[in-house]
Amino acid sequence: MNHAEWIREQFPAISKAIGFTFTPGEEIQERHRRFQEKMEAADLDGFLVVQKMDCFYLSGTAQDALLFVPLEGDPLLLVKRELERARVESPLEHVVGHRSLREASSLVVEHAGRPPRVLGLEMDILPARDYFRLQSLFPNSTLVDGSGIIRDLRKIKSPFEVDLMRKAGDIGKSVYQEAGKILREGMTEIEFGGLLEANAKKLGHEGLLRVRSFNYEAYSWHVLSGFNGGIVSQSDSPMGGLGLSPAFPVGASRKLMKACEPILVDFGTCYHGYQADETRMFCIGKMPLKFVDAYKACREIHDAVLAATRPGADCENLFLKTVELAKDLGYEDSYLGPPGLQTKFIAHGIGLELNEFPFLAQGQTYPL
Amino acid sequence: MNHAEWIREQFPAISKAIGFTFTPGEEIQERHRRFQEKMEAADLDGFLVVQKMDCFYLSGTAQDALLFVPLEGDPLLLVKRELERARVESPLEHVVGHRSLREASSLVVEHAGRPPRVLGLEMDILPARDYFRLQSLFPNSTLVDGSGIIRDLRKIKSPFEVDLMRKAGDIGKSVYQEAGKILREGMTEIEFGGLLEANAKKLGHEGLLRVRSFNYEAYSWHVLSGFNGGIVSQSDSPMGGLGLSPAFPVGASRKLMKACEPILVDFGTCYHGYQADETRMFCIGKMPLKFVDAYKACREIHDAVLAATRPGADCENLFLKTVELAKDLGYEDSYLGPPGLQTKFIAHGIGLELNEFPFLAQGQTYPL
Repeated sequence: MNHAEWIREQFPAISKAIGFTFTPGEEIQERHRRFQEKMEAADLDGFLVVQKMDCFYLSGTAQDALLFVPLEGDPLLLVKRELERARVESPLEHVVGHRSLREASSLVVEHAGRPPRVLGLEMDILPARDYFRLQSLFPNSTLVDGSGIIRDLRKIKSPFEVDLMRKAGDIGKSVYQEAGKILREGMTEIEFGGLLEANAKKLGHEGLLRVRSFNYEAYSWHVLSGFNGGIVSQSDSPMGGLGLSPAFPVGASRKLMKACEPILVDFGTCYHGYQADETRMFCIGKMPLKFVDAYKACREIHDAVLAATRPGADCENLFLKTVELAKDLGYEDSYLGPPGLQTKFIAHGIGLELNEFPFLAQGQTYPL
Repeated sequence: MNHAEWIREQFPAISKAIGFTFTPGEEIQERHRRFQEKMEAADLDGFLVVQKMDCFYLSGTAQDALLFVPLEGDPLLLVKRELERARVESPLEHVVGHRSLREASSLVVEHAGRPPRVLGLEMDILPARDYFRLQSLFPNSTLVDGSGIIRDLRKIKSPFEVDLMRKAGDIGKSVYQEAGKILREGMTEIEFGGLLEANAKKLGHEGLLRVRSFNYEAYSWHVLSGFNGGIVSQSDSPMGGLGLSPAFPVGASRKLMKACEPILVDFGTCYHGYQADETRMFCIGKMPLKFVDAYKACREIHDAVLAATRPGADCENLFLKTVELAKDLGYEDSYLGPPGLQTKFIAHGIGLELNEFPFLAQGQTYPL
């Protein structure tokens, strides 16, 4: 049996037996229906989806591929590697192979009957060099940034997606239950983080937390103990930490964890691409009163923002209210970071990427 | 003590005590000397370095920053977050803060005395949207793709870099020594991979293996047992594997490992940003003769390519010779993948990223 035959005949059953869930055809169809609606409103007559998670969202496969979506008619999935597997994973009807961007562009024109007039691209992440290459391959098309459309599309989660996110959350829950048993004085932060991760992977956690951003990296472990919890670093977050070296200056370090200091664990999990992100506080022995009080204040803010969160609420307002409340509670100078370095958001959307819309943040003046 | 004071007064000693090595000033100076030579040859009078690892290579810090390098004179590091920490980590003299790309561009012009005539950018990874933004901020500058210059610059490693790579290799060696003790029948591949990773992290492994490529992700665990070692997936590699789900279709899966089947472990490690990448074969019990023979053939190819590897050797030729040798040894149809899906490279450079020059591969016709 050759590779293609194996993939066609054995892969579906074997992968399901070890826990693979494939995206159902109706789910993909509904995403395309909403996508084409948004394309029409933006006056696009085609979209070339190049980014892995957008492509996965609209095709059901994360193989190396491009997806052409015309305003009307069927999408065309163009697979570089591996074609047979993409055919099994994706419920799309038109799945073809390609070896180069030139060949892919010809196949797009052939499929659509003509080159697109206005072609959407994810310019928030498409490298400039690839943009110029695409412009030369579609010389008469107007290339426009359609990344807002896709991010907006992915903002609302279907029941199928929520279920996968719940499973990611369940893994996180188990990890946090184990965490208390693993934690002990004298362990380094990174040793503890590594053990949490091993635990999570055994349960199906996929290790990488994907982020939609040039240069921004997410680590699946943020273990910050004592003074390390107060150090701000490169990321737009109140939690920075020493990290492991100047090349990885965020998160868990080789600092030893001591008794009676606050230990923050921000552990994200990922199941079938969908993420859950939860932070909890730990302490070996008795937490000093100062930190217990601060924790209570955080909890009050947390509950207040949850109570105000409902469809139609203004995202910026939800954030600004927490700033006021923090002030009332006496934490004006340390809320979301030290003075001058305070972060301006309290919550973010999550899904296939860690930073999805909506953001409860300064400047995000749209309804939830 | 406020955050800035803490970073200035406490951070240097505390971070060194837990193992941080900072890049020495002479090392950075020498990199800039070579960089400016290459800039001159390419007729650039300025370079705006935007990518995290390029910026780290030329500044010593991985804080959120841009680096402007003029053809003559001192570079200017523009830090978004966190400025004080960048000042400690980087030996560069001119380190300033900025809040927006607009402000950064003004600071560049002020520093250089005029806007650059021809400005180099890393267009292989700079998103198209950021490119257009930069073009509007430097309306009279010609923006050119200088990514080849930087990749070429980073190709040759200094003794300082080799030492860090050796330490990454040492971590890998320890992990492989532990691996034989951890491995047992009935464990899933991902459970085993997770334990290797926890082990590596305890020793200083930084978890992420950075790759210079849009859409390409590297996982720090590739545990492929039995049939899973023969499955090709999205990446340009003979090793694919089932992975954990359609969203993570590469590497270790939840397949149970059995006795007497080959178990491939490709485990990359990262220390202070520098990577080492090593693959070893394991077996629980006795490896069937077929696989022992194939392993011997691989070893013969490995030794032959090593023997032919010397300065000036043609990179493509080194690869092509291995194809011939594989044919002579009777593995024409299965060398580097199944028929029709065979990979066209045998080795790659490595450093701060997993895919650095040179590549011993088809089409790479340059001297080593």
